[in-house]
Amino acid sequence: MRHISTVAALLACAAAAPLAAKEGMFTPGQLPEIADDLRETGLEVAPEALADLTGFPMGAIVQLQGCSGSFVSDEGLVVTNHHCARGSVQYNSTAENNYLENGFLAKTKAEELPAAPGSRVYVTTAISDVTARVRDGIDRLSPNARYDTVDQRVKDITAECEQEVGYRCLVASFYGGKEYTLIKRLEVKDVRLVYAPADSVGKYGGDVDNWMWPRHTGDFSFYRAYVAPDGSSAEYSEDNVPYRPEHHLKVSAAGLDDGDFVMAAGYPGSTNRYTRLGEVKNTFEWTYPTFVTLLNDWIDTIEAAAPEGSDARVKYESRLAGLNNYEKNLRGQIDGARRVGLVDRRRQREAALNAWIAADRTRASYAKAITALDSLSQESATADRSHFWYGNVTRPQLLAAAQRLYRLAKEKEKPNAERESGYQERDMAFFRQGLQALDRRYDASVDKAEWLLFLNGYLAQPDAERVAVFDKALGLDGVDDAKQLAAIVDGYYAGTSLDESETRLALMDATPAELEASEDPFMQLAVALYPYERKLEDEEEERAGRALALRPAYMDAITQWQRSQGQATYPDANSTLRVTYGKVLGGSPRDGMAYLPFTTLEGITEKDTGEDPFNAPQRQLDAIATKDYGAYALDSIGSVPVNFLSDLDSTGGNSGSATLNARAELVGLLFDGTFESVNSDWDFDPRTTRTIHVDTRYMLWVMDKVDGAQNLIEEMDVVR
Amino acid sequence: MRHISTVAALLACAAAAPLAAKEGMFTPGQLPEIADDLRETGLEVAPEALADLTGFPMGAIVQLQGCSGSFVSDEGLVVTNHHCARGSVQYNSTAENNYLENGFLAKTKAEELPAAPGSRVYVTTAISDVTARVRDGIDRLSPNARYDTVDQRVKDITAECEQEVGYRCLVASFYGGKEYTLIKRLEVKDVRLVYAPADSVGKYGGDVDNWMWPRHTGDFSFYRAYVAPDGSSAEYSEDNVPYRPEHHLKVSAAGLDDGDFVMAAGYPGSTNRYTRLGEVKNTFEWTYPTFVTLLNDWIDTIEAAAPEGSDARVKYESRLAGLNNYEKNLRGQIDGARRVGLVDRRRQREAALNAWIAADRTRASYAKAITALDSLSQESATADRSHFWYGNVTRPQLLAAAQRLYRLAKEKEKPNAERESGYQERDMAFFRQGLQALDRRYDASVDKAEWLLFLNGYLAQPDAERVAVFDKALGLDGVDDAKQLAAIVDGYYAGTSLDESETRLALMDATPAELEASEDPFMQLAVALYPYERKLEDEEEERAGRALALRPAYMDAITQWQRSQGQATYPDANSTLRVTYGKVLGGSPRDGMAYLPFTTLEGITEKDTGEDPFNAPQRQLDAIATKDYGAYALDSIGSVPVNFLSDLDSTGGNSGSATLNARAELVGLLFDGTFESVNSDWDFDPRTTRTIHVDTRYMLWVMDKVDGAQNLIEEMDVVR
Repeated sequence: MRHISTVAALLACAAAAPLAAKEGMFTPGQLPEIADDLRETGLEVAPEALADLTGFPMGAIVQLQGCSGSFVSDEGLVVTNHHCARGSVQYNSTAENNYLENGFLAKTKAEELPAAPGSRVYVTTAISDVTARVRDGIDRLSPNARYDTVDQRVKDITAECEQEVGYRCLVASFYGGKEYTLIKRLEVKDVRLVYAPADSVGKYGGDVDNWMWPRHTGDFSFYRAYVAPDGSSAEYSEDNVPYRPEHHLKVSAAGLDDGDFVMAAGYPGSTNRYTRLGEVKNTFEWTYPTFVTLLNDWIDTIEAAAPEGSDARVKYESRLAGLNNYEKNLRGQIDGARRVGLVDRRRQREAALNAWIAADRTRASYAKAITALDSLSQESATADRSHFWYGNVTRPQLLAAAQRLYRLAKEKEKPNAERESGYQERDMAFFRQGLQALDRRYDASVDKAEWLLFLNGYLAQPDAERVAVFDKALGLDGVDDAKQLAAIVDGYYAGTSLDESETRLALMDATPAELEASEDPFMQLAVALYPYERKLEDEEEERAGRALALRPAYMDAITQWQRSQGQATYPDANSTLRVTYGKVLGGSPRDGMAYLPFTTLEGITEKDTGEDPFNAPQRQLDAIATKDYGAYALDSIGSVPVNFLSDLDSTGGNSGSATLNARAELVGLLFDGTFESVNSDWDFDPRTTRTIHVDTRYMLWVMDKVDGAQNLIEEMDVVR
Repeated sequence: MRHISTVAALLACAAAAPLAAKEGMFTPGQLPEIADDLRETGLEVAPEALADLTGFPMGAIVQLQGCSGSFVSDEGLVVTNHHCARGSVQYNSTAENNYLENGFLAKTKAEELPAAPGSRVYVTTAISDVTARVRDGIDRLSPNARYDTVDQRVKDITAECEQEVGYRCLVASFYGGKEYTLIKRLEVKDVRLVYAPADSVGKYGGDVDNWMWPRHTGDFSFYRAYVAPDGSSAEYSEDNVPYRPEHHLKVSAAGLDDGDFVMAAGYPGSTNRYTRLGEVKNTFEWTYPTFVTLLNDWIDTIEAAAPEGSDARVKYESRLAGLNNYEKNLRGQIDGARRVGLVDRRRQREAALNAWIAADRTRASYAKAITALDSLSQESATADRSHFWYGNVTRPQLLAAAQRLYRLAKEKEKPNAERESGYQERDMAFFRQGLQALDRRYDASVDKAEWLLFLNGYLAQPDAERVAVFDKALGLDGVDDAKQLAAIVDGYYAGTSLDESETRLALMDATPAELEASEDPFMQLAVALYPYERKLEDEEEERAGRALALRPAYMDAITQWQRSQGQATYPDANSTLRVTYGKVLGGSPRDGMAYLPFTTLEGITEKDTGEDPFNAPQRQLDAIATKDYGAYALDSIGSVPVNFLSDLDSTGGNSGSATLNARAELVGLLFDGTFESVNSDWDFDPRTTRTIHVDTRYMLWVMDKVDGAQNLIEEMDVVR
């Protein structure tokens, strides 16, 4: 009867006040500025408190690789998404102990397992504005000099900050280079896996439900941060002790309902809310459609070269998943752009901005900068199109490795501080790890098939786009049949020894001259392409240098204009800590259809087919069948809430973000957006943008009734 | 903002009274019995009036082939679904006048076009109970004699009724043969096409949206019934005049909203609400899954043999659409059965019925009949499984034609009154038409590919299921490679002349001896199989004869039991006039998701891609863009309603049914059910069963703003 009565509610009440969804990924520092709206929307803690990154609650928020998380105990327990910790579950799984299939639970700290190599928990400890230091005097420089100066200053500031051992620092650029912030983060290197439910809970619905609502995914897992006994960052050691965060979140087991205030704090990766119309058009009319076509060919190529059940397929599963995910995302974005009329909306916005600029002569400099920015965007788009196929033919994994190694040798001729980012000493651990990891995702025949796909695209494009040095190095002139091409490509794979991890690692110490003398065909190609690649890089940096002068002026115009309308301008996402707030809210993905704000345990049984990805554990299905809800039910839906929707503004990187209620208690983890929302990176449409969270009541219910994780429930501060 | 405010309504009101969806396809005669509930649900006209088939409003309801319709003017104007009249649009379309693409509108009666051959409008003029005459004394007979007696009496009653020229009569069986009703219907043979919107309105969404909500289909068209100047039924003639019905419906242009009373009057085809558990299990565990597999192979076979763009494909489009439709339906039914737990629910119902029977010794005869019925069902299931592949290998179209022709020759040796139904003089017009129509949907290479598919299935089954006479006739013994089989089959297509329409029609006058002497391989096969086919028929009739004694007892038990619970038992659908009533009501197809009750004009724009099947006419998109709603908008949704949902109980055959409001004014046309409802033929699940209607306000808006059909708007009584 729940279904009917819920819908009856819809029918019974025709009139209701419209709700405005809340656009904005605000920096914590901006929150005092919008304190009134935060309070009005329902926040009960002082908005000013949210601006203090080392206070409560922000001091509990952490960053993982590509994900967000939060401390939920005073012993360094970190909760994040299952899909953020799954690599560590996989890393520890064996045929006998298949933790992916069975889940993993450490009943004591001694049972905790090391997370996958390279896993980190970053705890922000300080933030400072370094804009003046980065930008001082750069306007007078030529574009390339401007770019180089900013780059060098950013590296210098970073290096200075990292003189304190155990910290990883970051200079982040906001508003297109208008502002720079130094973020100092404790780098916890000893991260351990504490608890992850089975894939059949944590990945329930799998790729089928990816980006979909209604959703029933138990997307939560637990890590623990460990440090040396003196509290400093340290590599894994038995002597290490749990990190004691200054703040951790209380976990709510009750109360959250339709329309309630929620906010999420996390690390959204990137958005394009302020791109110019020309960039939008180029992306949606050319880049994305072109990529969708290529991705489909690419997926087909891998599937054919690595048939299901083959060893090669195992190595390419993750790439295939990534390509499929990207393809679905791009299609969603193209659909979404059409649906919301993205191009028209952007055109209207620019017309309105232009009108505001034209209304006052003192704003003329904005107009000038914007005109120059638009022509720069046009140049960039032309360059991107022109190098599209060249970019693809340099994708083979061993070529890419050779290119990085040769570049490293060249960079090492400079003092460390002057080397290109990614080639400094601080980067070497990840550099080495990247070279090692290649083994697990490389298969010669698949790589070769991919290369042939790209080469055919390259050969089919107009002659003008071909790159002479590449043609010459491969001997492509005059090649016009598949056999000839295959023979050339075969030679590369037959002649290389870069497919051996040891070879690659040893070459990290080679000199440029040694590499130039190498007989490895991929290394020879890398050496041959080097000058051309640097030329492309110089051209890119020249454009970036011009953008550093123009985009801040454009963003300033946007900010002044929006301020004149009483609106706070937030910067595009850039993997720094942001806060987004709003309400628990269903949605209407399209005419005639509504998303209800909560899903229920019974929805799992309804979806369950017994086959992956809809194969909930029997213990769980039994507990649902007997309505063994424990203390976790929500009265208004008559069941335990599983996932919920909100109108929060989020994007990739927000995964694992703490979702907090008005009292800053943890009520959920943000883990996805609806398919209708993937376009929101470009344009936040309040009608359709919805973020998906796993409810803490479901998390606690699974821990309590399915996985017996009482030890963790007791460790956390569960509040009602 | 509509989206948000509609959903906000859902969120704003947590509590609401649950609504019970209204199960039941009631005969008009039953309505006085449930008058209280009809009034309580909102009916404003006297429930007793609905029982009068020649009074208002039932006198306005008509039957078409496989569809329903209703009179909407005193000049015989009939409104039905676009998909019910589309064959007539297609029949009149030419390359120059593509009415499918452009729509068709007769601005005057003179411009009206003849409907497709065989089109009929049946107007019910009388109904009488003939149970006593049909069933008298049959309980004492043997099963085969019982079957034959009932069959002969039904034919006799029909023949008697049809002595009045221009009438088509029908004896319908209710409650599994417990009751029989004679229905006398004026057979209007001169049917003309008056108005059909373009496919891009009338078939908007096409196969993609078939059975789907949200829906935006303008599924309406208009016929006109013509009769001889003296009012009698007549074939097409220029002298004919519009039929003047005693009653017609007023068309409502206003008022219908969420939760309002609606009812539909039409001719649902068949349901299985009272099948026994064993029949349900056999269907869902064997028949449907087996068919889904076969249908997929079958579709692949046709698509391979009739490639897109080929002439053959044109001939098979309609079969492919039918097979795809059926496949989607079966999958929906299997899904639905799993979702609602059909088997468990039926088991529970039977346990409850058994308990009621066991509670009173006088009910022992019910138990006995039910036990016998269950064992009979088991026998039928075994026979069905056993003949599954034989049934398929006799599908080739020319073999089927040969079998019907030889059967006709044999039947003609008997007096007309004693001939098998389908082979009497009254059937010959449709028989001839069927033989003619074969040309338009037959291609030898496709038919051959289909036959090979079936033959391979036949050969792969256990030897015990093979049919000796079929093996012998085809020479299948010892055949074990594809080449041999292909050679046999090739011989049939090379040697036949039944692929010529004239040949087939000429054979309608042949004697059995002439056909037995035929050298046509398909005719020889038909003659060879004849005795075996009659044996199968006898066995089926024997089982049917037993069922005629058992099923009425079972239905009597159900009726008594339900009555003891204050419930009226309605008979399974059987293509006779039924009334279903309930409310305009959204639904929840699954956890976390809701269907809103109305779709809007803006939803068309939202769906429109410019490509079939989402290619609304530009004139329509323009009118939507300028919000040119005329007087047809519904305030609560802020637009013109396009389609709406109700909890009415409907099935195939209901298409085109008049949907009436509390005052019996036409507010819509029933045209589909949601995908979650396809299982409702077996089990009406009030949570998910929803019927889809096109709103008369959308129909009038299209007529007014898009197609300029003011002449018809003026002809109808449009009320507000």
